[in-house]
Amino acid sequence: MSLLKTLFVPEEIAYTGGQLRSHWAYRSFGLLGDSAVAFIGPCDVKPEHMRDVEDLKAASRIYSERMLHFIVEHFDADLERAVLRQRLLIAVMGEALNRRLKTPQIVRRGSDLFDGERKFTVSVASVSPVSALIHAGINISSRNTPVPTRGLADYGIDAREFAAEILAAYAAECDSARRARCKVRACE
Amino acid sequence: MSLLKTLFVPEEIAYTGGQLRSHWAYRSFGLLGDSAVAFIGPCDVKPEHMRDVEDLKAASRIYSERMLHFIVEHFDADLERAVLRQRLLIAVMGEALNRRLKTPQIVRRGSDLFDGERKFTVSVASVSPVSALIHAGINISSRNTPVPTRGLADYGIDAREFAAEILAAYAAECDSARRARCKVRACE
Amino acid sequence: MSLLKTLFVPEEIAYTGGQLRSHWAYRSFGLLGDSAVAFIGPCDVKPEHMRDVEDLKAASRIYSERMLHFIVEHFDADLERAVLRQRLLIAVMGEALNRRLKTPQIVRRGSDLFDGERKFTVSVASVSPVSALIHAGINISSRNTPVPTRGLADYGIDAREFAAEILAAYAAECDSARRARCKVRACE
Amino acid sequence: MSLLKTLFVPEEIAYTGGQLRSHWAYRSFGLLGDSAVAFIGPCDVKPEHMRDVEDLKAASRIYSERMLHFIVEHFDADLERAVLRQRLLIAVMGEALNRRLKTPQIVRRGSDLFDGERKFTVSVASVSPVSALIHAGINISSRNTPVPTRGLADYGIDAREFAAEILAAYAAECDSARRARCKVRACE
Amino acid sequence: MSLLKTLFVPEEIAYTGGQLRSHWAYRSFGLLGDSAVAFIGPCDVKPEHMRDVEDLKAASRIYSERMLHFIVEHFDADLERAVLRQRLLIAVMGEALNRRLKTPQIVRRGSDLFDGERKFTVSVASVSPVSALIHAGINISSRNTPVPTRGLADYGIDAREFAAEILAAYAAECDSARRARCKVRACE
Amino acid sequence: MSLLKTLFVPEEIAYTGGQLRSHWAYRSFGLLGDSAVAFIGPCDVKPEHMRDVEDLKAASRIYSERMLHFIVEHFDADLERAVLRQRLLIAVMGEALNRRLKTPQIVRRGSDLFDGERKFTVSVASVSPVSALIHAGINISSRNTPVPTRGLADYGIDAREFAAEILAAYAAECDSARRARCKVRACE
Repeated sequence: MSLLKTLFVPEEIAYTGGQLRSHWAYRSFGLLGDSAVAFIGPCDVKPEHMRDVEDLKAASRIYSERMLHFIVEHFDADLERAVLRQRLLIAVMGEALNRRLKTPQIVRRGSDLFDGERKFTVSVASVSPVSALIHAGINISSRNTPVPTRGLADYGIDAREFAAEILAAYAAECDSARRARCKVRACE
Repeated sequence: MSLLKTLFVPEEIAYTGGQLRSHWAYRSFGLLGDSAVAFIGPCDVKPEHMRDVEDLKAASRIYSERMLHFIVEHFDADLERAVLRQRLLIAVMGEALNRRLKTPQIVRRGSDLFDGERKFTVSVASVSPVSALIHAGINISSRNTPVPTRGLADYGIDAREFAAEILAAYAAECDSARRARCKVRACE
Repeated sequence: MSLLKTLFVPEEIAYTGGQLRSHWAYRSFGLLGDSAVAFIGPCDVKPEHMRDVEDLKAASRIYSERMLHFIVEHFDADLERAVLRQRLLIAVMGEALNRRLKTPQIVRRGSDLFDGERKFTVSVASVSPVSALIHAGINISSRNTPVPTRGLADYGIDAREFAAEILAAYAAECDSARRARCKVRACE
Repeated sequence: MSLLKTLFVPEEIAYTGGQLRSHWAYRSFGLLGDSAVAFIGPCDVKPEHMRDVEDLKAASRIYSERMLHFIVEHFDADLERAVLRQRLLIAVMGEALNRRLKTPQIVRRGSDLFDGERKFTVSVASVSPVSALIHAGINISSRNTPVPTRGLADYGIDAREFAAEILAAYAAECDSARRARCKVRACE
Repeated sequence: MSLLKTLFVPEEIAYTGGQLRSHWAYRSFGLLGDSAVAFIGPCDVKPEHMRDVEDLKAASRIYSERMLHFIVEHFDADLERAVLRQRLLIAVMGEALNRRLKTPQIVRRGSDLFDGERKFTVSVASVSPVSALIHAGINISSRNTPVPTRGLADYGIDAREFAAEILAAYAAECDSARRARCKVRACE
Repeated sequence: MSLLKTLFVPEEIAYTGGQLRSHWAYRSFGLLGDSAVAFIGPCDVKPEHMRDVEDLKAASRIYSERMLHFIVEHFDADLERAVLRQRLLIAVMGEALNRRLKTPQIVRRGSDLFDGERKFTVSVASVSPVSALIHAGINISSRNTPVPTRGLADYGIDAREFAAEILAAYAAECDSARRARCKVRACE
């Protein structure tokens, strides 16, 4: 049994940024404790829900017609760890995409995935007063986005299947990281 | 300027595990503060320097004729973060290998890289009383290893060039993670 | 499934204090992660293994002919939490004893249990570089102890049954504390 | 002198949950630093002040005609420690009750006290941005409560006397935990 | 290059307390990461922006016709460290003043500077959810203040020059503290 | 009553660096908890007790015929805070010296005090597994030191009187820092 509870929500949900708050997975789906929830829906983040101050300053639009979203919550309100976990989640997604594409064309730069100059993802890591929170959205559609993008549909990848793979892989990552932490001796 | 100082040491060094201690980079090369040092040499970790208790219990041999080694030190003695940073470093290495091979055949499982069932790396993350320490070794030679392995030489990859790429990429990863941490607002 | 792995070791073990070290449960019994291990055996703590400096200063003897021992390890090297967890463990033991005795004659004072002036337990909480460690020993025999004591045998309590009850109760305590932590909102 | 300042407020105060905020003891009574304040009054927690998301989800009513309340603040905003301290406070209350009743009929389950199936207490532990906060309320009256309860009056226990005992015992617990933390050596 | 970015803002800014919030330096001046910003302007802190609860309780007025202000942000939300850093900043200011005055007449008491009974500064250290924040204001004018004060103008000290000296000295302090932390071995 | 226990030891003690270990004040003088101990004696730090790796690398001699020593222990094993507290202690010493000399000729550079180019102090801040530890030594004699120095005797300052003043001032500093931490509200 994994320490991280995972769920794919079959109903579509429009992501507004309002979902990135503590206990959303518990309030909405009864998942108590560390969790990763995936769902499909459009993305249009309201300025009051934008967490990256750079986006706020630039008045960026965080928009996609149709995305696969992941909302991850760890009950450990440490922002450095949240940022590191976010990048691992994005690395896991990039690794899975390249395995499916059978070519390493998807490149990770920090917390973003790109195919050449086309952006594949939006993501942010933050903390609530009681937890760390990560949003990672990967385009399904690449139409009408504010910058040139690519989406899962452009490669014929089924979003639900991909979601299941990522949820399982991220849970395995968290479990093996925990095991590693529990079996290492300190250095001098 | 990166927060992480990087160095490739041109002289060969035999890795015994004794290098994985606090201030090794400062004592040996004058690098004060967070650092990543790479060097080439054989690997034969003495039991008293093995950090993974699972290896100790199994009396594993951590051995390679010739490896490219990375010793990373962060002056932040948090073991969870050390484990997460280690996995990011390994992810960075896997991404770089696949880009060079032009095929995603190298697969990361936790803190290890594999080509099929052949192991490419050894790695451990730990803490000293004042810092986090990571060793990641990637085989150059795959001969005479205790388990089936692959090495950089099997793919015609130049270890020095690869070292330079990884040092730069990991430094960039640390810097962008720091920037991300400094520009995000908290959630509710 | 509890987050805390528990084990009663049927073989007797002489407690010397040397067992209170990181990964003892993993090295000895393969329990990886947070754990509570109980066993029966004499207690004679060598000065080099005494953790309480007050005992060292006083050259106290920590001795019992026969005790039920608990060794608890949490992979969270925070000494304040270790001390609080120790007291909860002792409270759990006191509660269980009084329920069995059907009278609240066992009194907890900090990390010790007493029946009147007779001491029932020895206990210490400390940290290793990677974990918190607790030893709690409860006398089975009260003979030949350096101070007036009471033991489980004086009340006709079966040590194995009692061990099983405490291991289960402490694991439940840890799990419900974790659940509480994950479902509470912050205050202003 | 204890590190924890304690106060019994002779005036009745209706507990609404609004008291569970940082610096309430300092603003209201001039207690600067770690404190435990007790008072008597009804309990009717407004939904916006409910801290346990499980209660919010269930739309529970947290109500009592007359309770003895404890508000504890520690200037250490660590939620794990807050939860452990809360349980120690509840253990201290259970131990005191059973000593008075001369029978161990009051049973602690996590952060609640019960007499059989009748609930004696409500309690929550949380954090503000600068501190840990605990509310523990023990019924005086058991009339008109949403679930079957027991109260101090049912056992003829004087709430003021009981408050004084608990405040002193919890302060002693905090002091001895602090002393224990300051006299223990680390393990390997 | 210092880890702390410093800036003197040539335009006057009226300090209301509203500037003491996370990312103010980044939003206003593009300084990403740890920073110290100085500017000149009046000081009139609105009650809703007062951070010291003692001031709020006393309904103090935090007022000055003309002050040199420093706003410091460290992306490390630890309140104990924030308070220690604040006092170091004030010590740095006192040391610089006395060097200029060629007599040690300015005395630091905690986080305040005095010339005899005349107060020179106002200051507070706090945390946001993602950072530590310090405001230190030193009077330029000493007229019309709620308590007897002294100001830089009373000594003929140029505020801009003084600001530049303090920004450089505090940045050097932070850098040398960081170096010290990275070159020290642990004790037993 | 201060949180920090202070003691001036009338007997001379030769400082070897071996005193800078956890619980030294408790083992030697029965001071349990945070403490600052002052004593007079020569200083000759053995290489195995040198904590600053820079000194070790340079094979520096840390030597003085006669010094006033301060050993400070805080039961909070955070190295950043230890370094900040050390600098505050040195600032307190510099402030006190200049007040006595009636001229600000003693200048603090990081954790050292100078009179021109003549060094007045040696100091280091480190952590044990359970605490933070600071050594600050201020020369009484300036004879036969490895670098040009000044000592208290050169200015006719009585070391015992000075010790008493610094112990009281540092205790007051710690207490007021604690009070400040407990009365501040968080920012947004």
